[in-house]
Amino acid sequence: MVYAVGLMSGTSLDGIDAALVEISGKEEQTSVKLIEFLTLPFAADLLSHIRDALSLEESNVEKICSLNFELGEQFAQAVLAVCEQADISLEQLAFIGSHGQTLFHIPFAREQLRASTFQIGDPAIICERTQTTVVSNFRERDMAVGGQGAPIVPYSEYVLYRSDEATRILQNIGGIGNLTVIPKAAQQEDLIAFDTGPGNVIMNELCLHFFDIEYDKNGVYGKQGTVNPELLQELMAHPYIKKPYPKTTGREDFGKQFTQQLIQNWPLAPADMIATATMFTAKSIALSVQPFIQGKTELIIGGGGSYNPTLVSMIKQALPEVEVLIQEEIGFSSEAKEAIAMAVLANQTLQHSNGNVPSATGAKRAVPLGSITYY
Amino acid sequence: MVYAVGLMSGTSLDGIDAALVEISGKEEQTSVKLIEFLTLPFAADLLSHIRDALSLEESNVEKICSLNFELGEQFAQAVLAVCEQADISLEQLAFIGSHGQTLFHIPFAREQLRASTFQIGDPAIICERTQTTVVSNFRERDMAVGGQGAPIVPYSEYVLYRSDEATRILQNIGGIGNLTVIPKAAQQEDLIAFDTGPGNVIMNELCLHFFDIEYDKNGVYGKQGTVNPELLQELMAHPYIKKPYPKTTGREDFGKQFTQQLIQNWPLAPADMIATATMFTAKSIALSVQPFIQGKTELIIGGGGSYNPTLVSMIKQALPEVEVLIQEEIGFSSEAKEAIAMAVLANQTLQHSNGNVPSATGAKRAVPLGSITYY
Repeated sequence: MVYAVGLMSGTSLDGIDAALVEISGKEEQTSVKLIEFLTLPFAADLLSHIRDALSLEESNVEKICSLNFELGEQFAQAVLAVCEQADISLEQLAFIGSHGQTLFHIPFAREQLRASTFQIGDPAIICERTQTTVVSNFRERDMAVGGQGAPIVPYSEYVLYRSDEATRILQNIGGIGNLTVIPKAAQQEDLIAFDTGPGNVIMNELCLHFFDIEYDKNGVYGKQGTVNPELLQELMAHPYIKKPYPKTTGREDFGKQFTQQLIQNWPLAPADMIATATMFTAKSIALSVQPFIQGKTELIIGGGGSYNPTLVSMIKQALPEVEVLIQEEIGFSSEAKEAIAMAVLANQTLQHSNGNVPSATGAKRAVPLGSITYY
Repeated sequence: MVYAVGLMSGTSLDGIDAALVEISGKEEQTSVKLIEFLTLPFAADLLSHIRDALSLEESNVEKICSLNFELGEQFAQAVLAVCEQADISLEQLAFIGSHGQTLFHIPFAREQLRASTFQIGDPAIICERTQTTVVSNFRERDMAVGGQGAPIVPYSEYVLYRSDEATRILQNIGGIGNLTVIPKAAQQEDLIAFDTGPGNVIMNELCLHFFDIEYDKNGVYGKQGTVNPELLQELMAHPYIKKPYPKTTGREDFGKQFTQQLIQNWPLAPADMIATATMFTAKSIALSVQPFIQGKTELIIGGGGSYNPTLVSMIKQALPEVEVLIQEEIGFSSEAKEAIAMAVLANQTLQHSNGNVPSATGAKRAVPLGSITYY
């Protein structure tokens, strides 16, 4: 076992997630244990530099050049912080896997633009400040073999959750819901991953509209209210829900605009609206999961939605033949999952092993991901 | 011995230089032989994408994201082309060292900007298309240890030109002149590198102004004309010339504006102006070289200026105690030099050996340069 740190900086711009893990082996024999986790928030001026760099209007080559180094320093700070918190010295650290901050992603070529992806946070800076080897820029190689460069987490899910006894379906419930199916005794090529539809996005928009709160904490309103069957039926008739996979969706389909339309068309009590939206998320997940149930099947829920007991209980009711668990119940951390995945990918790359899942990204073949900056 | 390719794409935007070499050993024991060299010019649309990305006004994050992949494809094409020209298969190729296209360089922090450097041309794309391991992004690590990330060529010069019998001074004459001093039996830390002053820039501006030609081909005008001693004296009094090293200069000091001023102040015959400018370059080089002459000393001239016999002969006259040679006379290729340097740096990095020269870049210490994308 060696110590490693995985770094993730998501599009939500909450800050830098750093997961310190103990890791050994490779491929199916990989063993990973989370030791420490923290999120280092971005300072205001760094956040404004990132927002500028993300904007087509504000970004330019000079700002991006500088921000790449500025972020490198900050990623290094996150490594130092998580090691200090765990009382692990840099000498004990074997490697770092850094996703970088995504500035842009073009999954398919259009007009003058190539299919491409762009993450920054300079690995040489991270390497030098932490005195540790860094693996970075994981998505490019998948795109080089025809993949979309996303999703990037399935390989780690495969390694961490694969079972010889059960089919495991990992359901992440963020703004949008997405799942990864790992059939019993799966080979890597058996994995299936797609977006199931809305996660918390409609519920959250309703909470903001009716109560000026960010989300339905502990599923209180969802539990209070009554599901409206007509509205539920209309929601389940949304074309995305019955579209066959592979498929991806986003806030542009189920976000603010969609929710405002619902509120206009359905003058229901706020709690009933929230209850119905909660049931919609539960039913759309259940419908997505249904075709993959085979023998002993576990549905493992992560993301913000896993903390909503009303939602989890609705999913359980909709899938009586499935064992529904939340990440924490089986000893995993939902918030650390993506950062842990970066340590798993780096561990693969350092052993010249593959890290993408072609059935999830559309790549022609599995390849090692990322570039190595040796200390 | 293994085959390797070094790739360089300079700020002049002439295209991609690809040097196929046979290489073995490391550090002082490195042996390099140039097998094949070519320059793959940029197609018009790619060139316009690069120009956009270089411009503060036109660049944005989307264009840079796409161009990084587009350039990766083009760098790979240059590798395929140079291998085909040499009749070497990709299976025979051990590795590639790719400098990338510099989009921006901030040697010192200023205002909101970090000291940083930014080269693109995605290594994962190059790796996949050529089925070969790629080492890339050499400059960042030098900046991570406090260097300016430039010059990047001195390590390769040290390896290729170091001698136990003589002090060797490498004088590159591009638009600007720059030299690297490699004392007899030098250690890496003994190297000195700085810009000597104007290279061809003043001569070229005069040729453009008087004759609408790009440069003084074969030094014809410089030979025809007569050096004006008063003008020469004024030029040699330029503050840059007597400034102690380390020092760097650019077109902003000796370019179009500077030359126009000369033309206004000195109404001489065109050939006399060119002859005087040629002598100015020769004398400023000689003055820079003088302090480093010790025992047997060779001055090895490369770059466009090495093809100007009038200039070379003036340098010889000004340095009678030095053996003045041009790169080709000692079996090296002047135009391939930087691309060869990228193969040398990659070779170092793959063997966990250092690649920067702290006395040239100002770095606190020598470090391995670049990131490795393994095939």
